[in-house]
Amino acid sequence: MFDLYIANKNYSSWSLRPWVLMKALNIPFKEYVMPFEGGTGVSYATFKRFSPSALVPCLVDKELAVWDSLAIIEYVAEQHSKVWPQDVAARAWARSASAEMHSGFATLRNECPMNCGARVALDDLSSALKADMARLDEQWQQGLSRFGGPFLAGKDFTAVDAFYAPVVFRVQTFGLPLSEASQVYVKHMLAQPAMQAWYQDALEERWREPSHEADTLKQGTLTADYRKACP
Amino acid sequence: MFDLYIANKNYSSWSLRPWVLMKALNIPFKEYVMPFEGGTGVSYATFKRFSPSALVPCLVDKELAVWDSLAIIEYVAEQHSKVWPQDVAARAWARSASAEMHSGFATLRNECPMNCGARVALDDLSSALKADMARLDEQWQQGLSRFGGPFLAGKDFTAVDAFYAPVVFRVQTFGLPLSEASQVYVKHMLAQPAMQAWYQDALEERWREPSHEADTLKQGTLTADYRKACP
Ligand SMILES: N[C@@H](CCC(=O)N[C@@H](CS)C(=O)NCC(=O)O)C(=O)O
Ligand SMILES: N[C@@H](CCC(=O)N[C@@H](CS)C(=O)NCC(=O)O)C(=O)O
Repeated sequence: MFDLYIANKNYSSWSLRPWVLMKALNIPFKEYVMPFEGGTGVSYATFKRFSPSALVPCLVDKELAVWDSLAIIEYVAEQHSKVWPQDVAARAWARSASAEMHSGFATLRNECPMNCGARVALDDLSSALKADMARLDEQWQQGLSRFGGPFLAGKDFTAVDAFYAPVVFRVQTFGLPLSEASQVYVKHMLAQPAMQAWYQDALEERWREPSHEADTLKQGTLTADYRKACP
Repeated sequence: MFDLYIANKNYSSWSLRPWVLMKALNIPFKEYVMPFEGGTGVSYATFKRFSPSALVPCLVDKELAVWDSLAIIEYVAEQHSKVWPQDVAARAWARSASAEMHSGFATLRNECPMNCGARVALDDLSSALKADMARLDEQWQQGLSRFGGPFLAGKDFTAVDAFYAPVVFRVQTFGLPLSEASQVYVKHMLAQPAMQAWYQDALEERWREPSHEADTLKQGTLTADYRKACP
């Protein structure tokens, strides 16, 4: 059985990816939630104990550490055939889209950090954010129409959906603009039991990270907060 | 046979990865060099014709486009068994290190852009750059000692070496500080025929991109330029 180290479910977008994939595919693992300690970068010493890069997520399989969300997903894929689509073309598309997210969409990630429980009205979209959203929407529509939906690469939840799961929560938090086809995808994703399970856990968390909260409100105003216990 | 679209060999670090991997492994492909047109982001319309993200590298296999360096490498790995190490632990390590580079080392990538032909004396290393170099050095030393060298994950050139190939050229250009074990690795990599072939092609290029040249000199002074024809 795998051990998966993650950070706060409310905030940790990279952690969500392998977690939601393994839940959606019924791959058993034991989770260890290691909360951020006072903001980005401060958890270094704690995270370094189990993760070579001092970053989460980190999957531990006996003595082996796999310390990056995409590497974890490829590691799990070697043992579970449903991680990536079966079809060669769909798999190549899914891997391209996942890797594009892994190293791209910097503006979307910075200006709209994941904060599952919050709802924010954005003042205005920067032109860089509009460009990221346009590319995202184009890519999602392409996948949905080419492979027939309702997931990005066809009828099943695969790793590419896990890679965009944090964006799904961001769309919900910030009301980001998308085409109708992409909005249907967002609704479908939010209704998945694995996404619901993560979301409920996030709402229960009592930790509040000032730096993450401040980043969330850099470009807008809080309109709602569904977290159970605001300290 | 694959078609590989890349940008200027002197500057395009992401392009180098699949190119050097396929050369080192003798995997046949046809290259298409699409030079940057007046700086980052301006090549959008041209690149968009063959690459869905308008970024290079993009591998085209008949009607299939694979548009990210890591996705390309996984696509090629499905057809060629020597892309990743054979051993499970070495492969998990190599994939983790590659994915860590894919989404990380932002300071190293921004402050020391790849510019194969130039030599630069850095004024001073920022603390963020020192942190990136410390993590890089730690990671390289771990791979070299755990898997026995002379490559990062053992005796053969694999995808993780391709992922760090741009860093090898950056170390040469900026004289970046590294432990002795890592310096030996850099020398070994620079001596590889595939690295030499890329380097010689880079020196022959006549294109000069003002934005890339300016970025190269943001933190230091030019001490040499080995490119053949400075316009
Ligand atoms: N490329 C890594 C990135 C992981 C990452 O940046 N994780 C963040 C949390 S989402 C982290 O661990 N930050 C450390 C901290 O904030 O102290 C991956 O995909 O796993
Ligand atoms: N995640 C992508 C990143 C590719 C990327 O950023 N490529 C740069 C060149 S190295 C690019 O195409 N830039 C477009 C431009 O400068 O116009 C990959 O790994 O392939």
